[in-house]
Amino acid sequence: MQKILVFGHQNPDTDAITSAISYSYYLSQSNQEVEPEPVALGPVNPETQFALDYFNQPAPRVIETAANEVDLVALVDHNESQQSVSDIKEVSVYSVVDHHRIANFETADPILYVALPVGCTQTVIYQMMKFAGVKPTKEIAGLMIAGIVSDTLLFQSPTTTDQDKKTAEALAEIAEIDLQAFGLDLLKAGANVDDKSALEIAEGDAKSFPMGDYSIRIGQINVVDVADVLKRKDEILAVMQSESIDHSYDAFLLVVTNILTNDSVGLYVGNENLQASFEAAFNTKIDQQTLDLPGVVSRKKQVVPPLTKAIED
Amino acid sequence: MQKILVFGHQNPDTDAITSAISYSYYLSQSNQEVEPEPVALGPVNPETQFALDYFNQPAPRVIETAANEVDLVALVDHNESQQSVSDIKEVSVYSVVDHHRIANFETADPILYVALPVGCTQTVIYQMMKFAGVKPTKEIAGLMIAGIVSDTLLFQSPTTTDQDKKTAEALAEIAEIDLQAFGLDLLKAGANVDDKSALEIAEGDAKSFPMGDYSIRIGQINVVDVADVLKRKDEILAVMQSESIDHSYDAFLLVVTNILTNDSVGLYVGNENLQASFEAAFNTKIDQQTLDLPGVVSRKKQVVPPLTKAIED
Repeated sequence: MQKILVFGHQNPDTDAITSAISYSYYLSQSNQEVEPEPVALGPVNPETQFALDYFNQPAPRVIETAANEVDLVALVDHNESQQSVSDIKEVSVYSVVDHHRIANFETADPILYVALPVGCTQTVIYQMMKFAGVKPTKEIAGLMIAGIVSDTLLFQSPTTTDQDKKTAEALAEIAEIDLQAFGLDLLKAGANVDDKSALEIAEGDAKSFPMGDYSIRIGQINVVDVADVLKRKDEILAVMQSESIDHSYDAFLLVVTNILTNDSVGLYVGNENLQASFEAAFNTKIDQQTLDLPGVVSRKKQVVPPLTKAIED
Repeated sequence: MQKILVFGHQNPDTDAITSAISYSYYLSQSNQEVEPEPVALGPVNPETQFALDYFNQPAPRVIETAANEVDLVALVDHNESQQSVSDIKEVSVYSVVDHHRIANFETADPILYVALPVGCTQTVIYQMMKFAGVKPTKEIAGLMIAGIVSDTLLFQSPTTTDQDKKTAEALAEIAEIDLQAFGLDLLKAGANVDDKSALEIAEGDAKSFPMGDYSIRIGQINVVDVADVLKRKDEILAVMQSESIDHSYDAFLLVVTNILTNDSVGLYVGNENLQASFEAAFNTKIDQQTLDLPGVVSRKKQVVPPLTKAIED
């Protein structure tokens, strides 16, 4: 059996961490070729830690590079190389299980690649488990639910599909939990920003997206009151500015999402040409580096596609 | 329901044509969102025509462009944009079902993407049918077998997996045919080169592959006697040369495969720098534009990967 590292994207959210764990479990139960270990490309956030504690599971160890340990990796919850491990080009990809757009991804050989347009990678993994006859343990089922609740904001995000809901409900029976109560506790555990630094708020869940000739950084943070972030606006904008300079981002958008009302406010740093594209994408004006994003809760579905279109057109 | 065109790659082989048909059937039986029509990016070859005639099925109509008819397409048996319909950038991709490497493929939104490292797209489609509870008709099952036999050279190609064999055997029961007898007749129907022009021999199954900064054209033709092609070597090389000039290929390799002995001979046209990479890739010398490729039957597994490595290293 060949050793294989399984991981989600940089700046891991709950789906990235727990999908690495559940997919490793799936491989260990269904595949004789590889010996999987779930790892992470960064420390777990408070929301994920709440889920791990709830089901008594350890956090995956954090790796900086993969090629020093293995020849083969499995990607979950991402495929774009700039969101993956820094030395992704030095290893071979065994498989991808994902629910994002496909871009900046290339292999020399055919591989297993399963992506579905659903709200969460765990929903895809659950389908694979069902097909292979693999039943998750109570703890794995619980972590899979955490991924779904986190990615779909407890089924409020427009990325939510019927499959996500049905999967979470089926898993809740295995995990023996109250889905609504657990889900709300999980989201609240991740929505406390007072203990976070400005850098953690801006960068905690940020990803880079190449759009046209530009590198666009998009972060998102969930809160129960947007004012908790806006009262620290100057400090956060300063961090976004310095991060943009250090990493050559052409623009940086932080989406601050109220998980109770399902509205967002954006903070913007970037050059003036790009500002017009952002305003066109969201049909609004950016005033004092702030823009209203009513009804926006999904970066993947409501932020990246209109922005890609506005910038590339 | 939204109209959707389903097609395989340019220069369609039997898998490309029949997968468009079987995946359209699968969608029509399992999906309420789309109304699929199988089409083709070129005329069917004699092998495919044999299969269509055998199971009394019409050839899909040939399209030049897609955007003039639909907004949405489904790709089978390919993903790389240069192998797809000419105006692929003008339409949205609904889904991909494939068994090739992933490259030059990008979407703005998440989609269904299912690829497995197996010998034939039909093997992937059969898994999807099983999962969705869709049973192919006798005719669809027969066409699916034709795809598998064609791509795996009746299970002799190193791309063949256990899954391909088991799938073909299960389908043979539904189609009520003798797998070996039908398979050999199918391959022989495709291996007659005497009626083909030099252009059809060189270009009939050819695909372009970007490798490093180069555009590499690789064709393959199956024969029962390599001499049938080699006796027309000068004429074929001249066509490969003029095609390379017309389409800016940096090199053109035609793999002539004996389906009875499972060996190949290559014909080469290209510049001298690249010739060294070809020689390194296959650990041989190119003499009078000819190279021996003993044991080579799979472009995907035995030609593209070593060549990519030799050129990009």
